[in-house]
Amino acid sequence: MTTNKQILLASRPQGEASAANFRLVETPLPALADGQVLVRHHYLSLDPYMRGRMNDSKSYAQPQPLDAVMIGGTAGEVAESRHPNFKPGDKVVGMGGWQEYAVVDAAQPGALRKVDITHIPLSAYLGAVGMPGVTGWYGLVKICEPKAGETVVVSAASGAVGSVVGQLAKARGCRAVGIAGGADKCRYVVEELGFDACIDYKLHGDLKSLVAALKDACPNGIDGYFENVGGMILDAVMPRMNAFGRMAFCGMISGYNGEPIPMTYPQMILQSRLRVQGFIVSEHMEIWPEALKELGTMVATGQLKYRESVAQGIAAAPEAFLGLLKGKNFGKQLVKLI
Amino acid sequence: MTTNKQILLASRPQGEASAANFRLVETPLPALADGQVLVRHHYLSLDPYMRGRMNDSKSYAQPQPLDAVMIGGTAGEVAESRHPNFKPGDKVVGMGGWQEYAVVDAAQPGALRKVDITHIPLSAYLGAVGMPGVTGWYGLVKICEPKAGETVVVSAASGAVGSVVGQLAKARGCRAVGIAGGADKCRYVVEELGFDACIDYKLHGDLKSLVAALKDACPNGIDGYFENVGGMILDAVMPRMNAFGRMAFCGMISGYNGEPIPMTYPQMILQSRLRVQGFIVSEHMEIWPEALKELGTMVATGQLKYRESVAQGIAAAPEAFLGLLKGKNFGKQLVKLI
Repeated sequence: MTTNKQILLASRPQGEASAANFRLVETPLPALADGQVLVRHHYLSLDPYMRGRMNDSKSYAQPQPLDAVMIGGTAGEVAESRHPNFKPGDKVVGMGGWQEYAVVDAAQPGALRKVDITHIPLSAYLGAVGMPGVTGWYGLVKICEPKAGETVVVSAASGAVGSVVGQLAKARGCRAVGIAGGADKCRYVVEELGFDACIDYKLHGDLKSLVAALKDACPNGIDGYFENVGGMILDAVMPRMNAFGRMAFCGMISGYNGEPIPMTYPQMILQSRLRVQGFIVSEHMEIWPEALKELGTMVATGQLKYRESVAQGIAAAPEAFLGLLKGKNFGKQLVKLI
Repeated sequence: MTTNKQILLASRPQGEASAANFRLVETPLPALADGQVLVRHHYLSLDPYMRGRMNDSKSYAQPQPLDAVMIGGTAGEVAESRHPNFKPGDKVVGMGGWQEYAVVDAAQPGALRKVDITHIPLSAYLGAVGMPGVTGWYGLVKICEPKAGETVVVSAASGAVGSVVGQLAKARGCRAVGIAGGADKCRYVVEELGFDACIDYKLHGDLKSLVAALKDACPNGIDGYFENVGGMILDAVMPRMNAFGRMAFCGMISGYNGEPIPMTYPQMILQSRLRVQGFIVSEHMEIWPEALKELGTMVATGQLKYRESVAQGIAAAPEAFLGLLKGKNFGKQLVKLI
């Protein structure tokens, strides 16, 4: 009988998450019941939202239960099937969690989706053509509502979400400006992804310096802002927002360990008549088909570029995840299992 | 020749505004040119937004020039006219400023509007059936978008704007909860205006206490919030907001003297997927006719109640205005000139 290596949440972080919060276990795979599918995972997706799930606090999402397999998006191949719609060899994406195999009740709507890897690599379905891509699409298209000629700024610009935001903004005729940590990431954002500019926040230790950098990079102000970080970066963006600007709040990774991240000048929301909106992409399933169609076409044609940080083997997942929270990844963080 | 008493802005406040920032002058009235109308003011409107105009800072509005008549809404009667549409005795509203008379170029669109005082008192055109009323209408109807059964909270609830917000919310089948300063104001908000509850913020010196009071008053959470104050009150409302709640930012009087008023937990905008939007009612002239029609009908039929604080004589305007900034008024603050 095949065994399955899994990563469980062993304990909840006090402040910063650490490797001690996770536990690797090996369990035998059960026999399939009728309607079930055994998926062998090729890739695990690691995403910042998982940090929030590790807390027990009442939040917008259910906390990840202790001693259960860490949740997460997965891409793989059907190994065995007792459901008529799936056969061995089918490439599928789902929410299989941090484990090598998942037994999936395939009849449950949305549990497992077959994907075509003719023109799109399997891993991209966890990134640009998956949840992160649709996240970028929703926040940009539905909240920032960019018009040609406007300026769109996105933080964590080299990441799985941010990179999509800027490239979609460019495709809509906007000036796209990224904020990222380090010269390598900024060079990539401009030279590879085609953003008009990218600000290295590590070069700007205080608010004033960051505001000045944004002024240089956004001579006509900012019309749309896509927030992945929060804290000082948000404070710096605020005074550069144009009247009637739109801000999509997608993530605030700078506060994920419980640090206070106050918005220093909320009165600017009034002064600049901003619209600020938080969202979770899984609550807007109605837009996924439209978003995935645009994203899939752009990836297949090479118009939408992305980069991946790939850790090898299930045991590497915790460290890769902790690195992601510190910005050590460069592009979409994956764990490759085979 | 008639003389005109006027209040000028003499200097800009450093921190809190004071009487020394104003100067009363007496000037002769000029003869009318063709197309001009001489209006004798019966009422001056005093409004919190004027505090912002006293600063020189780049803000959403033009600063009030030094040594010029303080801006402001006015209601009065035509004394002389050299414009065919206006005749002596006509009741009119305009932006005549802090003075007893105004010479108005009546051909300028929107400069002067005739009003009917058969069913609506003249002073109401500066309050519930004027700019404050439309402000409440816009923020509630267009931003908070209340549905029957939802809970709407408004700060400065006994004021010219807040009182309209709550009564319009009640008319739409919502639970209306006010926040106001003092037992008298809270009693008025509930017993006279018909709100479901009102929280006296003066009884709650810390955030925890105010959050608990909001929890009691809003057992089903808050769906729409209309912000006139900012600071701790905003912080207390935030954790009680329901998913997909809407917040209209109309004013932040707690920060008008330059005090820092950070929003302590902006991550709640994301967690609760809130939509937060700032607005200035004068930028939405297209909705004024619809809003004024509803407000005028409700005042004429007694369905929309309001209260006025009336100071007597032009010389009393500065002190009345400074009192307004400290919440000493009770309802719409006016200055009566005749």
